[in-house]
Amino acid sequence: MGKVTITEIARAAGVSVPTVSRVVNGRSDVAPGTRARVEDLLREHGYRRRPQTSGDRAALVDLVFNDLDSPWAVEIIRGVEEVAHAAGMGTVVSAIHDRAGSARQWMKNLRARASDGVILVTSVLEPGLHEELHRLGVPLVVVDPAGSPTLDAPTIGATNWAGGMAATEHLLSLGHRRIGFIAGPPRLLCSRARLDGYRAALEGAGVAVDDALIVAGDFYHASGFAGAEQLLDLAAPPSALFASSDQMALGAIEALRRRGLRVPEDLSVVGFDDLPEVRWSAPPLTTVRQPLTEMGKVAARTVLRLARGEELDSPRVELATELVLRASTAPYPGRNPAASG
Amino acid sequence: MGKVTITEIARAAGVSVPTVSRVVNGRSDVAPGTRARVEDLLREHGYRRRPQTSGDRAALVDLVFNDLDSPWAVEIIRGVEEVAHAAGMGTVVSAIHDRAGSARQWMKNLRARASDGVILVTSVLEPGLHEELHRLGVPLVVVDPAGSPTLDAPTIGATNWAGGMAATEHLLSLGHRRIGFIAGPPRLLCSRARLDGYRAALEGAGVAVDDALIVAGDFYHASGFAGAEQLLDLAAPPSALFASSDQMALGAIEALRRRGLRVPEDLSVVGFDDLPEVRWSAPPLTTVRQPLTEMGKVAARTVLRLARGEELDSPRVELATELVLRASTAPYPGRNPAASG
Repeated sequence: MGKVTITEIARAAGVSVPTVSRVVNGRSDVAPGTRARVEDLLREHGYRRRPQTSGDRAALVDLVFNDLDSPWAVEIIRGVEEVAHAAGMGTVVSAIHDRAGSARQWMKNLRARASDGVILVTSVLEPGLHEELHRLGVPLVVVDPAGSPTLDAPTIGATNWAGGMAATEHLLSLGHRRIGFIAGPPRLLCSRARLDGYRAALEGAGVAVDDALIVAGDFYHASGFAGAEQLLDLAAPPSALFASSDQMALGAIEALRRRGLRVPEDLSVVGFDDLPEVRWSAPPLTTVRQPLTEMGKVAARTVLRLARGEELDSPRVELATELVLRASTAPYPGRNPAASG
Repeated sequence: MGKVTITEIARAAGVSVPTVSRVVNGRSDVAPGTRARVEDLLREHGYRRRPQTSGDRAALVDLVFNDLDSPWAVEIIRGVEEVAHAAGMGTVVSAIHDRAGSARQWMKNLRARASDGVILVTSVLEPGLHEELHRLGVPLVVVDPAGSPTLDAPTIGATNWAGGMAATEHLLSLGHRRIGFIAGPPRLLCSRARLDGYRAALEGAGVAVDDALIVAGDFYHASGFAGAEQLLDLAAPPSALFASSDQMALGAIEALRRRGLRVPEDLSVVGFDDLPEVRWSAPPLTTVRQPLTEMGKVAARTVLRLARGEELDSPRVELATELVLRASTAPYPGRNPAASG
């Protein structure tokens, strides 16, 4: 029996290629009748996701970042590596730098090494490369999706909206009313969800959203520094800042320090991520913990299930965030005598 | 012609297995006559380092850490990935956690995926696993070697001794005489070299080395915090601290902050590494830059050269460190008015 492609199965079943791909990838959003027809055809044609690994080749999972330039990345890598290692698989780490040429080179390498699955972190692939993964039958899982949630792949994230709300409610409960927000890249869903959580908390407390208090950032230190300067230069500056990444929070704290402002005595600051380093920042940072290592583990387990042809319980998993109280927030107005403890 | 092993070549040449391995791995520390004899035998027996990659399998390089728990790791990964990616190779990242079972599982996976080379970072393998890499003919490069420099593999590091000296000389030039030193794990050569550089600078300046000023650490934050506390509790505490990793320096700064001491007005602090985050610490950290990403690149280029059977210029490469002056050091005694700039 010759090799059959997903395209041929789709034609025979009278459905689209993405639909066949959804069935192959264990997605639940396919009508039961369609699923049954496609599964019958897959069986009948002996469709195989990829060449079976022979006994003497270990399996590989590809973990793809846009850039390897943040302590954030190593938290995800650790989670993926732990699960893959236990399953006897290697974790191939790549950076595609948002460049089409680099992504195509990666795809070429991926095909050559017959990788068993792909985990894509906060990145986008050109549609052509998505199609190619489908054709190869390599399962794809996306961590912290950029862009459209209708992406035809299971996604793993954190409860970014709830986290944004929890951080803002914490500052509100301390009496702050003018709370600055330093945003992440708008193309990422996680950025948008954190901002919406901030807005929802303000609205819930009956505090009007002031657009002047919302400034752009890109999750990196320098944009937190610049964002804090912009907010401090307002005619009515905020008494608290919610930086929607830890790196931006650290940049913001440095901007305050250079102006002779103390955290939390003069301004409260909350971050988002809970990177290991912020336990040791000066002062230790109150932040929203994202379970990055757990997200890596869940992504790895999901891609392994797909590679084994198992069905998923849900195409979208959000792991819970948690507000971690440390020393960078204090009541408004005035000093918190316990701040340096 | 059947497969020949390194053991058989060694027997035929009348030399040890490590000697053959040195020739195969392009090491220069083999007598010319011995090298010629071994190379003749390798050619004669058609020795191949590993099964040739067929046109449809991409090559892999294994990058092995002890733990994936530091922003330090991602700097190395970035360098290795960049070179490997450009060469069409995948970078398989693993953590072996100093556990024999984990390392053996990794070796089993490595063998199964027919990896083309191994880069080992600040880790040790059991002798048995070293032997197995030799037998498989998989070239090995070690970054920041732990233990003996007689390890039978090329090594890549930084000029740790010169860096330790430069940091200490900087503090001496500011007038500090009692300079605390927070050490790294003594099993790592890089730790020992930094400490010796500290001692050499003091001796060069005619300042007696006071062993009470040298405290133990493990490169992580918590040990910098504890080390600073220990030094501040001395009857004659230091006026400056040299923490031999950035993470320990950040931990030390937090210990000072909790005692109400300001950096650099009350104490100067120097780190070692130049992690991206210390540009944004409060205050930005004066530190010794280790070119971690470059070290990753050189390690990857070296393992690729070995995999191609090329000879190396040197079995040991040390990349230059550089003192980076920021805002965490000031003259002794008294305040530095520019410290917050």
